[in-house]
Amino acid sequence: MELVKSVLAGSRLALARALTQIENGTAEGRAALTSLFPHTGAAHLIGVTGAPGTGKSSLVNQLARYFRSPTAGEPRRVGIVAVDPSSPFTGGAILGDRVRMRDLAGDPGVFIRSMASRGSLGGLAAATSGVVQALDAAGFQVILIETVGAGQAEVDIARLAHTTLVIEAPGLGDDIQAIKAGILEIADILVVNKADRPGVETTERALRGMLQLAHPVPHIFQNHTGHKTSDPPAPQQADILWLPPIQRTVATEGSGVPELAAEISRHHQFLTETGELLCRERARLQSELDLLLRETLVARWRENVSDDRYNQALDQILQRQLSPWQAVEELLHA
Amino acid sequence: MELVKSVLAGSRLALARALTQIENGTAEGRAALTSLFPHTGAAHLIGVTGAPGTGKSSLVNQLARYFRSPTAGEPRRVGIVAVDPSSPFTGGAILGDRVRMRDLAGDPGVFIRSMASRGSLGGLAAATSGVVQALDAAGFQVILIETVGAGQAEVDIARLAHTTLVIEAPGLGDDIQAIKAGILEIADILVVNKADRPGVETTERALRGMLQLAHPVPHIFQNHTGHKTSDPPAPQQADILWLPPIQRTVATEGSGVPELAAEISRHHQFLTETGELLCRERARLQSELDLLLRETLVARWRENVSDDRYNQALDQILQRQLSPWQAVEELLHA
Repeated sequence: MELVKSVLAGSRLALARALTQIENGTAEGRAALTSLFPHTGAAHLIGVTGAPGTGKSSLVNQLARYFRSPTAGEPRRVGIVAVDPSSPFTGGAILGDRVRMRDLAGDPGVFIRSMASRGSLGGLAAATSGVVQALDAAGFQVILIETVGAGQAEVDIARLAHTTLVIEAPGLGDDIQAIKAGILEIADILVVNKADRPGVETTERALRGMLQLAHPVPHIFQNHTGHKTSDPPAPQQADILWLPPIQRTVATEGSGVPELAAEISRHHQFLTETGELLCRERARLQSELDLLLRETLVARWRENVSDDRYNQALDQILQRQLSPWQAVEELLHA
Repeated sequence: MELVKSVLAGSRLALARALTQIENGTAEGRAALTSLFPHTGAAHLIGVTGAPGTGKSSLVNQLARYFRSPTAGEPRRVGIVAVDPSSPFTGGAILGDRVRMRDLAGDPGVFIRSMASRGSLGGLAAATSGVVQALDAAGFQVILIETVGAGQAEVDIARLAHTTLVIEAPGLGDDIQAIKAGILEIADILVVNKADRPGVETTERALRGMLQLAHPVPHIFQNHTGHKTSDPPAPQQADILWLPPIQRTVATEGSGVPELAAEISRHHQFLTETGELLCRERARLQSELDLLLRETLVARWRENVSDDRYNQALDQILQRQLSPWQAVEELLHA
């Protein structure tokens, strides 16, 4: 496949074209993914999540810049995938993209892709996963996957990463409930950004308190289709468990960014040395397999049922002649 | 079915038992739903969503109290369903429930149910829909469906309601991006709670600005399975479009609550008079049908594929012998 060859040879234009095909879920996109897949597995996938207003995008830009600078050792090629699952109606991702482009423009070692939700959430997570794979195959060594918010959507997308950063900021709500237990449990590294603002101690104390409450789970094996999977290798010792560090940053000035990058490297080393990386790879790929299975099952069924039949069932539900469960039974026996 | 008879006769114990069956998705739960479904359709379903820290729960309690008080005309029976999709790991919903119980305890005209996410998001939305149906059949005339946050999850759950309130509060982040365009487009009524705090004018101004930017869309017909549906009846006149009002409240004191309840009644009247209620019912039930179809398709497939076969495919992906898409092809041809 000509397109795939060009992507592997480093053509940005070919990569951009392939990503569009992958995002749109075309047959060409699927074919490209299948050819690219054997070339994946080398990148460090870093998820970055946090509520709006935490300065997440600025921090991602600063991290990208840092990974590109010679001060941090051999500069690494950086991919950025910005996902906004909270905006199903408007193309909010586009603006952020433009701002970013200005910041990192012209560096051939950086590739940025923004994705807005189109239709179903499962579709978005699957498309994101495909885009990440293509960047991985194209030789980007660090891939930052940025998502807004802290809902299940973001948890699903964070599950695509090896290392997950959760960004907080002072003054975004003073209640303890503003810091979500769920998101804490997926965090490998906690970042308090805008650390020059008042209230930074309170935010950090609240995070520390929550961390102590939460059981530190080194990895999450959740399974979308409910299949039992082979047990992951157990951590060899209790003391190799990773305790999420809390790092303060001021992204607008770049302060705390080298320290944060060091924590990221330390986490990658932890993953590699403990064999945890393999566990995460397995969980990650399983998440993806399950998502694709789900989407494909629905798509196939859709092809076999006419719109008329579907609408008839819906009318019967509306008239309370059929319960939704009865309608499902009828439609699936078509 | 004995359980269903008792629910319809007004037994709280039977209702609680039925809800547990429904939440757990048991065969008994499905049977109960099918028997209860013909008795649904009378309740006014009110979705309440907003970020953590906006005081959403207090506001829901105050609204429930107001609907129960004789000052508001004939007291109505109130169901509360509190959903927390952002906490897939911990049972965060439980605490809120206890606080609430203290507040509204002992009133037989109020029934409260808290739900935390267990496993898949689709499962949670389907379970929520079932719980709402059971409360509707059991004669609760107003059902408040409270969800945390503003992601796709909440949008999906808000889609279960006839009237959706979006709660904001001053000082939860000063960026305009903190107010999400997507959530604005699902709002029928905007509430600025904690209106005694500084910054209330800024928040209200920002909301008003966003409202003017957003095209006021009176209803959302989004379709999970991509089926074309019969066109909804068009609004008869451009001037019957609903413009979301902005209501200030201080839930802790109850101020603004009667006015908010009046706006809710006005919206219900608007829905009824314009025929929009029927459109929303259709969209709502279609959402639910699609969710159930999706869940059932996955469950059926799961029964037909052995864990061994599934794990073998996963291993081949991990070893890059098979791309995820190839694995899906293989597994679905089983």
